[in-house]
Amino acid sequence: MADPVLSAQGVAVKQAARALRAASSATKDAALHGAADALLERAEAILAANALDLAAAMAARLGPGAIDRLTLDDARLAQMAAGLRGVAALPDPVGEVVDGSVRPNGLRVERVRVPLGVVGVIYENRPNVTSDAAGLCLKSGNAAFLRGSASAQATNLEIVAALREGLAAAGLPKPAVSLVEDTSREAAVAFMQLRGVIDCLIPRGGRALVAAMAEHATVPYVIDGDGNCHVYVDASADLDMATDIVLNAKTSRPGVCNAAETLLVHRDVAERFVPEVAAAMPQVLLRGDEATCALVARAVPATDEDYATEFLDLVLAVRVVDSIDAAIAHVERFGSGHSEAIVTRDLAAADRWVRDVDAAAVLVNASTRFVDGGELGLGAEVGISTQKLHARGPMGLRELTCTRWVVRGEGQVR
Amino acid sequence: MADPVLSAQGVAVKQAARALRAASSATKDAALHGAADALLERAEAILAANALDLAAAMAARLGPGAIDRLTLDDARLAQMAAGLRGVAALPDPVGEVVDGSVRPNGLRVERVRVPLGVVGVIYENRPNVTSDAAGLCLKSGNAAFLRGSASAQATNLEIVAALREGLAAAGLPKPAVSLVEDTSREAAVAFMQLRGVIDCLIPRGGRALVAAMAEHATVPYVIDGDGNCHVYVDASADLDMATDIVLNAKTSRPGVCNAAETLLVHRDVAERFVPEVAAAMPQVLLRGDEATCALVARAVPATDEDYATEFLDLVLAVRVVDSIDAAIAHVERFGSGHSEAIVTRDLAAADRWVRDVDAAAVLVNASTRFVDGGELGLGAEVGISTQKLHARGPMGLRELTCTRWVVRGEGQVR
Repeated sequence: MADPVLSAQGVAVKQAARALRAASSATKDAALHGAADALLERAEAILAANALDLAAAMAARLGPGAIDRLTLDDARLAQMAAGLRGVAALPDPVGEVVDGSVRPNGLRVERVRVPLGVVGVIYENRPNVTSDAAGLCLKSGNAAFLRGSASAQATNLEIVAALREGLAAAGLPKPAVSLVEDTSREAAVAFMQLRGVIDCLIPRGGRALVAAMAEHATVPYVIDGDGNCHVYVDASADLDMATDIVLNAKTSRPGVCNAAETLLVHRDVAERFVPEVAAAMPQVLLRGDEATCALVARAVPATDEDYATEFLDLVLAVRVVDSIDAAIAHVERFGSGHSEAIVTRDLAAADRWVRDVDAAAVLVNASTRFVDGGELGLGAEVGISTQKLHARGPMGLRELTCTRWVVRGEGQVR
Repeated sequence: MADPVLSAQGVAVKQAARALRAASSATKDAALHGAADALLERAEAILAANALDLAAAMAARLGPGAIDRLTLDDARLAQMAAGLRGVAALPDPVGEVVDGSVRPNGLRVERVRVPLGVVGVIYENRPNVTSDAAGLCLKSGNAAFLRGSASAQATNLEIVAALREGLAAAGLPKPAVSLVEDTSREAAVAFMQLRGVIDCLIPRGGRALVAAMAEHATVPYVIDGDGNCHVYVDASADLDMATDIVLNAKTSRPGVCNAAETLLVHRDVAERFVPEVAAAMPQVLLRGDEATCALVARAVPATDEDYATEFLDLVLAVRVVDSIDAAIAHVERFGSGHSEAIVTRDLAAADRWVRDVDAAAVLVNASTRFVDGGELGLGAEVGISTQKLHARGPMGLRELTCTRWVVRGEGQVR
């Protein structure tokens, strides 16, 4: 699996990470603003490279969704630049003293936040991830080692050139943002196995990528996983509120991971609520259990497979349940541990939901769509973790750091 | 790789984890005290099982060190019971609100500490790990899924039976502490791949185990890795303090991971310090560079292999360096990211060491031996992480938990 080009690149990235680790907030922010400037100044070259990628993608008959995700224009470039400036404006997590104490023997002990080192990101299609991920890594003092998709490689190379201009202008080493040159599958596997180089690998992609990580990765990683999110409408729910929340969770942006995929409705309110919510979103295809299909003519029968599916589309699975226990059991069986909401006026039901539903985020009387770095106050996010180790839920700048023990004494021995 | 017995056990452990998650501190503490009582009450059965394991180990010609680690007696059982009571006395990390805020739209957002779920532990030989690890898991609300060594299986089964007596007496499900029945290598690999069951796997063992984890594990894990720890004696060091610290770091317990393995000495003080420290520990075999060998007659020439070795014995590699930069570069090349100490009176050197040495713990004027859960104030530890994700350094109860977002609203939508 050893790949000499990749290994050499890894050495350079790791070397650059040392400089990033010691860089001041002011230097890092200067690099971010410089990178934003360079993205705009180099717009012509970036868009020309993007046109090449797009031509190849069309020749390869990529679908319209993939083509759209691949496409850059002046507005999207401006968004990318603004994103970098936004990250520069966030507080620097590095150096935060998380906790500390003086031990009985006089040792002064602190846990201090430090960068991870080299953060690897594997992503698909969208070239804006190149600057978004690099910006968050840079601000948090990490080198960014990026592996984009083959279809966006020309565009990504131009974006990285612009980002490196910002690094160089601030006196930081260019390899602090590096793009894997070989876009083959073999190189991706070798990338996942760069032990001693990559301190944390973050996959941003679909199930196939996550499965490949589980199979091949030997470096530490955090899964940015599926969002099979539920809204449970309790017997005591304010049904108008419930309609608003379901409508928002399902339809405001169906293609994102914090959109709702299944609606669970308590039997006591199903007769009124299911037809109401169905009427409120005529554009949504409903796949329901028997009770739902009896209440809504357009609903088609749902299978277990439907309940397990993250549709990422204007499709909603619906199930009428006998109790909050049945709702929790359904979430336990089918949920992906992302975001789970209850709509209720019953305090005991709310407390029960919060206590017993095991997910990165549990919500009471709010849309699942709020589970997002920006909405929860993290400023920006590099992904949403559905695993439990290191980071759970939206990963912001803080989740791109680790802590380290600093122990100061006057000669103490044990 | 699917192993039906193991999978069925996994289902039971996961089910038990749900009960643990919701258990009160009082219930968990009662189970810990009950388990401690049962360990003592069942001493005869445990020691009889241990005698069987020991007989088999001697027949298999295990070395004296391994035999010692495998051996239980009344004193060690009493220590294990006291350990469980000590864990019961520690604060419960579950339920801690790590941070929280009210968002501009009125959403009340909290991050709350919750158990990981099922914690897997793979360990070798020492049967006391069975109760130590189970106790920490139980206190932190996790089910413990344990895989000990074949050589200790009879002993471990008896210990688990005692622990389960404590669980049952407190009304908690027995499978909350479970031991993998099949001690084959194949079953260990299947154990490392129990995705959906094990939320965090902790290996407690040598390099071969860590390498096997990197190769086979598909569940999230935290590495309890090697400790190739250094003490650097700076030009400005108080040399008497330096001798005390080196002596303590090397000789107080040479077989543990926070013992020092290499001594780095600034050239300006080498002529005085190296002979002094060598004379202070005549029982230690020294492997030195040319300068060291010229100063100490008994020193033998060191190789790069020596500098890379965690001796875990009364052996110390020594190198004379020209500067703090050279010391840091040596640590960077050979260190395992565990614990790195400087002895100095120079503030700039201390600050430089703390800033630029990348390890779980950096120490100024203190022995590396302090890098331990008890000494740093964590109460007890399940291992010492040398990776950067999730936990770095000693892993106490808090490191056996994760956080979860709890979002409360009044019908907010995006």
